Amino acid sequence: MSGGAPLVELVAAAAAAPADDLLGLTAALVAVPSVSLDEEALAGAVEARLRSRPGLDVERVGLNVVARTHLGRERRIVLAGHLDTVPANGNAVPRIEGDVLHGLGAADMKSGVAVLLRLAEEVAAEGRFDCTFVFYEAEEIADEHNGLRKLFADRPDLVAGDFAVLLEPTDLWLEAGCQGSIRLEATFCGRRAHTARPWQGVNAVHRAAPVLQRLAEYQPEEMEVDGLRFRQALQVVDVRGGVAGNVVPDRCTVAVNRRYAPALTLEEAEAEVRALLDGADEVALTSISPAAHPNLTHALVAEFAGLLDLPVRPKLGWTDVARFSAHGVPAVNFGPGDPEVSHTAGEHVTRASVEGCFAALAAFLLGRPA
Amino acid sequence: MSGGAPLVELVAAAAAAPADDLLGLTAALVAVPSVSLDEEALAGAVEARLRSRPGLDVERVGLNVVARTHLGRERRIVLAGHLDTVPANGNAVPRIEGDVLHGLGAADMKSGVAVLLRLAEEVAAEGRFDCTFVFYEAEEIADEHNGLRKLFADRPDLVAGDFAVLLEPTDLWLEAGCQGSIRLEATFCGRRAHTARPWQGVNAVHRAAPVLQRLAEYQPEEMEVDGLRFRQALQVVDVRGGVAGNVVPDRCTVAVNRRYAPALTLEEAEAEVRALLDGADEVALTSISPAAHPNLTHALVAEFAGLLDLPVRPKLGWTDVARFSAHGVPAVNFGPGDPEVSHTAGEHVTRASVEGCFAALAAFLLGRPA
Repeated sequence: MSGGAPLVELVAAAAAAPADDLLGLTAALVAVPSVSLDEEALAGAVEARLRSRPGLDVERVGLNVVARTHLGRERRIVLAGHLDTVPANGNAVPRIEGDVLHGLGAADMKSGVAVLLRLAEEVAAEGRFDCTFVFYEAEEIADEHNGLRKLFADRPDLVAGDFAVLLEPTDLWLEAGCQGSIRLEATFCGRRAHTARPWQGVNAVHRAAPVLQRLAEYQPEEMEVDGLRFRQALQVVDVRGGVAGNVVPDRCTVAVNRRYAPALTLEEAEAEVRALLDGADEVALTSISPAAHPNLTHALVAEFAGLLDLPVRPKLGWTDVARFSAHGVPAVNFGPGDPEVSHTAGEHVTRASVEGCFAALAAFLLGRPA
Repeated sequence: MSGGAPLVELVAAAAAAPADDLLGLTAALVAVPSVSLDEEALAGAVEARLRSRPGLDVERVGLNVVARTHLGRERRIVLAGHLDTVPANGNAVPRIEGDVLHGLGAADMKSGVAVLLRLAEEVAAEGRFDCTFVFYEAEEIADEHNGLRKLFADRPDLVAGDFAVLLEPTDLWLEAGCQGSIRLEATFCGRRAHTARPWQGVNAVHRAAPVLQRLAEYQPEEMEVDGLRFRQALQVVDVRGGVAGNVVPDRCTVAVNRRYAPALTLEEAEAEVRALLDGADEVALTSISPAAHPNLTHALVAEFAGLLDLPVRPKLGWTDVARFSAHGVPAVNFGPGDPEVSHTAGEHVTRASVEGCFAALAAFLLGRPA
């Protein structure tokens, strides 16, 4: 429920909102609550809209909705957006002031979903590519729930294509590629002893100290890929050790998060961290999110960037472009809204941003400058 | 209960056991369970024995029993032992094999209690000093429960004297002085940020790393006091920091335990640790156990060591000698039993050790070589 209106009315309004008022459509989508794992109402509204259009092959898989054209074009473009939001923060009810829409998901990413709906409903049938529109669940929570993950696992045919655009908020920048992220946990062992006689034991925290110092001093260099400079990072994210106030600790664990440029392979990034952890008794790789190459030299990516004359930057955080990339589909982030306001109480999007995004993508699909 | 016999019978046996069979008396004391905070039965047996002797002024304060002579001698010697033990470890029932007694508290320190009882019952009335025999509760647990602490707080007259001997197991070495122990906790602050953009934050663990390294490398020197070499120690006993796998940690705490020789004051030891912790945002002193000076040049201590020709070493751990020392009473540890078997399942004491301790203390009280 939102703003006091019954949910069924909100869903009906979202299903019926005219697509040519993109800010209004976005507001209607914001009005339907869709916190992660609770996207059913919004998925229903999206599915209803798409099924009402001829020429779209619509499939529902869980809370994911996929609409495809079958125009017999040589190449297929995948355009994807997630339906879920983070929990509300006093901003569940949308509010339009002038040309600005305020509300949960306005930027991340119901404005993107609105753009996708209008492209599917008004442009795709005329385009020079076949198109796949993917509306998916549970992007904001643990990866195991991610709808795109499920589609790649269970229905790879529904997400196959030659180039993918994710409508994550980028403020109309082309965000090409993304950092990879790995986490390693190192364990240092020792031997307990009374602190009055520490020479009878081995202090595991003391053993970890030079490694912590090496990690703290390490500054991974910037790396250039396809002309984009990727800042990298290596951070100790957890350290723990200690038994009691008079006992030499026999165990210390150190967790490290390494964000690496797509110039490196996962194996290279892992080997680098393992070298820094030299001296630990055990090192385990506990989390893997592979990097995505910007692929700016790929024909379709280059055409997308060139035709639209978009400013290009790398994505620092991890997004689902890496998932497409890992499956061999070059992908970029390009969407309306300021990424900095995502997940904040002040989340909002401007009419110019939503319309600019639509115009750019329509131009690309139609093959002429916006 | 112990060994199946009713507790009242065990108490009666301990109260009646002849003092001239010191190993047998120790076994009778071991048979009466007296884990910390449960010393009432043993305190009752000890009190009954002491009250049956003329010439002893016996007072009961909580579970502590104090017996004093009032012979009008110039100097007063305090002889003290604790009644409690750590929890049993399959060794609650005493067992004598040849000249060795096995069982909980055999060394730490019911053999010492047996020696004290025989001294009180057979020797004190003939001695050249007035004597105070202190049997106290709860030495093996947190200091707040310690019986000697309560006596110094509530009845300082009962523990006053010119020289104190604690019957802690020392294998008949004179253990003079003890290390002090302080604990400090340092807090390093930072600012949270996403690990993809750590430059927007400050990593508290990284800030702590050089300090940890400095602590791990630090080797406090040995110090000589009254000809005794005190080994010192500084150990990190706890480190913790970490928020989540993708968050730059904003807080890291480091706890340090410093064991220092009595050549240093508490203030000097604290200042040294604070210097090593330079760079922390907050440093708090969280635990204090002051050192005890060996006082080997004090007239009574020198006489004790010289008359008995005892081997002398410093005590590494902390004992109640420091409590006497802090109240201006020079004190030493001297008792039967091997300190290394204390608190182990294999705890035991030999007849020679108990009898040797009694002979030495009797010789000191009587003023003639044993």
